[in-house]
Amino acid sequence: MYQAAIAWETNSPLSIEEVKVEPPKAEEVHIKMASSGICGSADHVLKGLLPLNFPLIPGHEGAEIVESIGEGVSSVKPGDKVLTLVVPQRRECSSCLHPRGNFCEKRDILPSSGLILDGTSGFTCKGEKIYNSFHTSTFTKHTAMPEIAVAKIDDAAPLGKVRLISCEVPTGYRAAVHSARVTPGSTCVVFGLGGVGSAIVMGCKASGASRIIGVDINEEKFPRGRALRVTDCLNPRNLKKPVQQVVVEMTGFGVDFAFEAIRLVDTMIAAWDSCHLNYGVCLIVGLAPSNSQLSLDTVKVISGRTLKGVCLGDYKTRDCIPQLVTDYLQKKINVDPLVTHQLPFHQPHKAFELYHTGKT
Amino acid sequence: MYQAAIAWETNSPLSIEEVKVEPPKAEEVHIKMASSGICGSADHVLKGLLPLNFPLIPGHEGAEIVESIGEGVSSVKPGDKVLTLVVPQRRECSSCLHPRGNFCEKRDILPSSGLILDGTSGFTCKGEKIYNSFHTSTFTKHTAMPEIAVAKIDDAAPLGKVRLISCEVPTGYRAAVHSARVTPGSTCVVFGLGGVGSAIVMGCKASGASRIIGVDINEEKFPRGRALRVTDCLNPRNLKKPVQQVVVEMTGFGVDFAFEAIRLVDTMIAAWDSCHLNYGVCLIVGLAPSNSQLSLDTVKVISGRTLKGVCLGDYKTRDCIPQLVTDYLQKKINVDPLVTHQLPFHQPHKAFELYHTGKT
Repeated sequence: MYQAAIAWETNSPLSIEEVKVEPPKAEEVHIKMASSGICGSADHVLKGLLPLNFPLIPGHEGAEIVESIGEGVSSVKPGDKVLTLVVPQRRECSSCLHPRGNFCEKRDILPSSGLILDGTSGFTCKGEKIYNSFHTSTFTKHTAMPEIAVAKIDDAAPLGKVRLISCEVPTGYRAAVHSARVTPGSTCVVFGLGGVGSAIVMGCKASGASRIIGVDINEEKFPRGRALRVTDCLNPRNLKKPVQQVVVEMTGFGVDFAFEAIRLVDTMIAAWDSCHLNYGVCLIVGLAPSNSQLSLDTVKVISGRTLKGVCLGDYKTRDCIPQLVTDYLQKKINVDPLVTHQLPFHQPHKAFELYHTGKT
Repeated sequence: MYQAAIAWETNSPLSIEEVKVEPPKAEEVHIKMASSGICGSADHVLKGLLPLNFPLIPGHEGAEIVESIGEGVSSVKPGDKVLTLVVPQRRECSSCLHPRGNFCEKRDILPSSGLILDGTSGFTCKGEKIYNSFHTSTFTKHTAMPEIAVAKIDDAAPLGKVRLISCEVPTGYRAAVHSARVTPGSTCVVFGLGGVGSAIVMGCKASGASRIIGVDINEEKFPRGRALRVTDCLNPRNLKKPVQQVVVEMTGFGVDFAFEAIRLVDTMIAAWDSCHLNYGVCLIVGLAPSNSQLSLDTVKVISGRTLKGVCLGDYKTRDCIPQLVTDYLQKKINVDPLVTHQLPFHQPHKAFELYHTGKT
């Protein structure tokens, strides 16, 4: 029996419980959680905005140590440090085999069953099945995961920090440097200056953007944004015009690259409208609530704009994410400014409180 | 006084009239029309689906000979062969100066005033102002156009054929070879096998696509499609499932590249849904009716798909379109299969009849 934080239903407080964790079966690994983060998508899950089964153990951004392995596991061994992968990489499906693909069909996201590959959820509590989230429940001291949903990382990695490289950093940083291919001297706008948005800012800066406009309704996020080289901070609530109109006026004609990292349809439209009508590229990085529609004026499409969704920075996860950890250790990328708080395991509610009050 | 075909109002037959054409002013050229084509966008104009002023002289795809030039004109001289450019290239605005841009702000499309650069329409008939369409009215024996809206082409060019290189061929062919960058061995679907769709097919084939699925409700277009190397022809009216579902099943998971060249929102959605959910790229090449909305399920965005609008193949028009004519003369590209009918000037209604009955 191990401790885990369970959401018994949507919009209910997390409850620390004793759970039974299944031992690792074939192609699974049993791991001990060292550090788990929260993400806006996890918040969507708890609010019922993504269709997952409850009760569940939330969280999908984790850094862990392998305790034991099931039959057939070859990419990790007990004692290895690993990161959880919300999109696994089995290397067999059309996405994995395509040069530009990464959305492995063995994922358990979009849609989600709450089950791991063997058809079980991996957890029980008081005799009741407790569902997994995305194969990667991290708000638990121990868990069994598919081998394809973990990536072995450098032994020297500090787990409390590189945990961010499991999701937040590749999602944001790579969206800028790889998916958008932000160009030197270009103009960018980033909607949302939380963790993912800040990672996007880092990617824009690393790519040589000359102007990076940051948009957030929480001005407490502006100092970190400026430290990461946001050139202009905008709070839409303090503007007399729609923020997209202000961005277009500030840049003359709209930005080269716009990024949405807030997870709302309205800000996706604002990002789209902030782009130059001809050569603007709009990257949708945030996962909007289920059943939401992004409605685009066709005239604003035919003039040449590009809209691209980005999942985990278009990374082939097991192949590529470990290199980001090595880059961090070699000081090629610095994720430290993105670590805002470190809390003990039994305070997951406190982590969500900090998230909801905009402190993260 | 010269003959021209006038649409006195929306949804009315074209009427051949005597019009007065203004002599060329500064930065304008007076040209004699040699060959004019029709395009689905011109049909949208006549039906009132795009907001233009009436009465107007329609048409925007033309091959002409320069008769006289106004002050300051330097890129063409009397006697030169030229093509009309629905998107001009003045080389001064943000679009023209951007490496990826082409949607010159001196265009008169999206939105359209029906006036040329000097603020006049260039035409009168029976004392009434007759509006221009897109700076490039071509259903007239003579017209004055801005210099920036014509491109000088090779003297040896046969105007009756290369006229297609004014709009249809770059719009379609370049969307495949340049905007989408169709890759060797890839799978493609093309919605609409008219002129633009056929040019897209040619571009897919030239890029090495291994499978090209053509979709049209008019099966008379299938033989030409097959001759251009469409591998599978689908008539949605003969299918028991939605065409996008059939395309996904035919290809296993959806195509690499989908193109919409019908100009309807429903087929834009079908093209989007035909793409692989992760690495699929959907190119919107057709100009939908004004005020129409393209509504995308956000889940189908975040999985990684790309949507891109393409106007004139992202060509910088004056810089690049003349080279396509040279390529035709050097037999690097063959536009002959796209010339379906050649009619005398006084039969524009016949051309639209052929278009409406799917013979073009």
